[in-house]
Amino acid sequence: MEAEIIATGSELLAGAVADTNSSFLARRLRSLGWKVQRIQLVSDTESAIVEALLEATGRCKLVVMTGGLGPTRDDRTREAVARAAGVKLVLDQAQLTRLESFFRHRNRPFPSTNHKQAFRPATATLIPNPRGTAPGFVMPMQRCSLMVFPGVPHELRHMVESFEPFPRLRTQPQLDIDIVGVAEASVDERVAALTLPPSVIVGTQAGGHRIRLRLEGRTDAEMLLAHQTIWQEFGAHYLGAEGKSLEQVVIESAQQSATLLACAESCTGGMIGAKLTDVPGSSAVFRGGVIAYHNDIKCNALGVEANTLERVGAVSAEVAEQMARGVRARLGAGLGIAVTGIAGPGGGTVEKPVGLVYLALARADGCSVIERRFVGERDKVRRAACNTGLDMLRRAILGLPELAST
Amino acid sequence: MEAEIIATGSELLAGAVADTNSSFLARRLRSLGWKVQRIQLVSDTESAIVEALLEATGRCKLVVMTGGLGPTRDDRTREAVARAAGVKLVLDQAQLTRLESFFRHRNRPFPSTNHKQAFRPATATLIPNPRGTAPGFVMPMQRCSLMVFPGVPHELRHMVESFEPFPRLRTQPQLDIDIVGVAEASVDERVAALTLPPSVIVGTQAGGHRIRLRLEGRTDAEMLLAHQTIWQEFGAHYLGAEGKSLEQVVIESAQQSATLLACAESCTGGMIGAKLTDVPGSSAVFRGGVIAYHNDIKCNALGVEANTLERVGAVSAEVAEQMARGVRARLGAGLGIAVTGIAGPGGGTVEKPVGLVYLALARADGCSVIERRFVGERDKVRRAACNTGLDMLRRAILGLPELAST
Repeated sequence: MEAEIIATGSELLAGAVADTNSSFLARRLRSLGWKVQRIQLVSDTESAIVEALLEATGRCKLVVMTGGLGPTRDDRTREAVARAAGVKLVLDQAQLTRLESFFRHRNRPFPSTNHKQAFRPATATLIPNPRGTAPGFVMPMQRCSLMVFPGVPHELRHMVESFEPFPRLRTQPQLDIDIVGVAEASVDERVAALTLPPSVIVGTQAGGHRIRLRLEGRTDAEMLLAHQTIWQEFGAHYLGAEGKSLEQVVIESAQQSATLLACAESCTGGMIGAKLTDVPGSSAVFRGGVIAYHNDIKCNALGVEANTLERVGAVSAEVAEQMARGVRARLGAGLGIAVTGIAGPGGGTVEKPVGLVYLALARADGCSVIERRFVGERDKVRRAACNTGLDMLRRAILGLPELAST
Repeated sequence: MEAEIIATGSELLAGAVADTNSSFLARRLRSLGWKVQRIQLVSDTESAIVEALLEATGRCKLVVMTGGLGPTRDDRTREAVARAAGVKLVLDQAQLTRLESFFRHRNRPFPSTNHKQAFRPATATLIPNPRGTAPGFVMPMQRCSLMVFPGVPHELRHMVESFEPFPRLRTQPQLDIDIVGVAEASVDERVAALTLPPSVIVGTQAGGHRIRLRLEGRTDAEMLLAHQTIWQEFGAHYLGAEGKSLEQVVIESAQQSATLLACAESCTGGMIGAKLTDVPGSSAVFRGGVIAYHNDIKCNALGVEANTLERVGAVSAEVAEQMARGVRARLGAGLGIAVTGIAGPGGGTVEKPVGLVYLALARADGCSVIERRFVGERDKVRRAACNTGLDMLRRAILGLPELAST
């Protein structure tokens, strides 16, 4: 069954803000068996919304809208929907009471601008928004169901995840398998060369360090077989099939094996720590880290030897190793990961070009160091270095083969 | 003059890949004076593309398409455009020669799948693509100009930036003003209450901590007046009008005043360091930091007193202050920023709920501590804490009034 998505907001059309709501909604709809045929970003004028809405509701069975329910003058979705459906906006008394109590609980006066959030199209049923003042709503339009949500991403996500508002269709078995540390083209090529059950279709999605293989098949047995074949092919590069991020896998496996972690970061400047602590419960295994940006800090806080720095420079295998050993010992961790490199745009030389990064992993029984030469701009080099460091932790914790220099 | 953008690709509609091409194109068109009225993401079937194309070219003066020019069977844009325009695909001899030499230079055979990339709609003129095998093209359709680009982001960007293919219109003066640390609704309300020149239109865009006001007006003089009025209204919350991020402003102003920076992070786990080092050239002023996640690290690496931790707990004004003073002294910085708080979802109590964060800023002449109670989930609390810490640095460096507890 076909669905469409309409996101409103002039900021989307100015290219000022990336539209993440549509892809969230598309993924959600897809997982329930809907086929999203079109996504439209339209400006927040009433006439533009009405036009897009009439077109979309004439073409498919479900239209999901996001945006334009806020309190400001720019927020015209409620009015536009009522106009497109040919119904009036009516005051919803229960919603008015909810709004009043929302502001009372926060010791704030009820702003007159927010009054309009108590109104809904006459034929609409409200969808609660526990996190904000703008409820969503669902109503019929033409031969279609229309669902409207606010555009604030965390409110939208919470509403969709809490209330499961979309009808679930009968779907084929689906599975997402994540691969890390292999280039997309190479994943693609290796998957194409596998012998998989003929009913299984594999799509590839690149997402930076993690490549997601999306499998669709006819039966669970065929899906299981395909899953095993892919796992076998990618070995230690296989991250999992539960949609977990690299840092989640690191933290969860560290919890299971009671491994304490610490990081020493130069060119990544805190990114590894920030990723690890993004995972709830990381405090059980993450001790902390040192952002050793200046060489002084490498010496004073990590015990890197000044003469090593002088002899081989901060971006070197030796310094990476001393950083990893230092942070592991000083922070009382089982595993210490260290990164030092040249993120650019400045600082590169012929011998040590932008993109050159050394990563070291210190364990109780030794320390491994690898060299990488990442391609791209500052941000890309830093992200690649951060992900490679996380992958080294993952492999060490899970007892998988170590990464090698490339 | 009105423009529309069409991006093709089933991966966009599955929500698997974020569409960054459209926002790039929208920004580019806007800066040249075009008004993007609609952005559509459509699947890569020929009929879907034809339908969207006929609609869009009937509505506006310029349609820009991206995607579907690759060598695979899924790439149907060339065929769809020819069908929509009612013209044939013809072999472009010069392009065929270019493709042959592209593969010869790489010592690779010319794959038969790539042959179709030598064809173009009969009325089209090719736009060169120095980075790939798929050229773009421009052609008239209905009363509109149609421009088509490949979907590979770096190829698209390079083509647009090298060849400046879009016509430049005469534009009204425009200005983006960034405000930090004020809620969107409150920014909107305060702007609405200002007396601005009548020709000046102000739009608001929320982007997390930074609210962007987009001004459009008739004359430069009126824009200047509006700019000054807004600056005056928001005072220390005024970030600038050059589109700089908070961390860029911190690093650049630290460079100008030769202020060395250091951070001590508990609940943000490295985010402040990661943000600061995201700015090229940050190494000139950022010394480094300590990710003091476990209490041991707060004591050993920052000199927080164990009995303070025991008496008032890690999430307290006292510990924040000791962390800030400690990191400033130990890392040899002029300003030390520290964050400790409860990001959640676990760890909250009645007295110290999730969202409670203390931030401290140590200077040569003392230390300021503020308490904040952020609302939202782990990620939101952490981002708010990180941005508030950056804002404290910004205010201290620029000599603006300090932030207060709320």
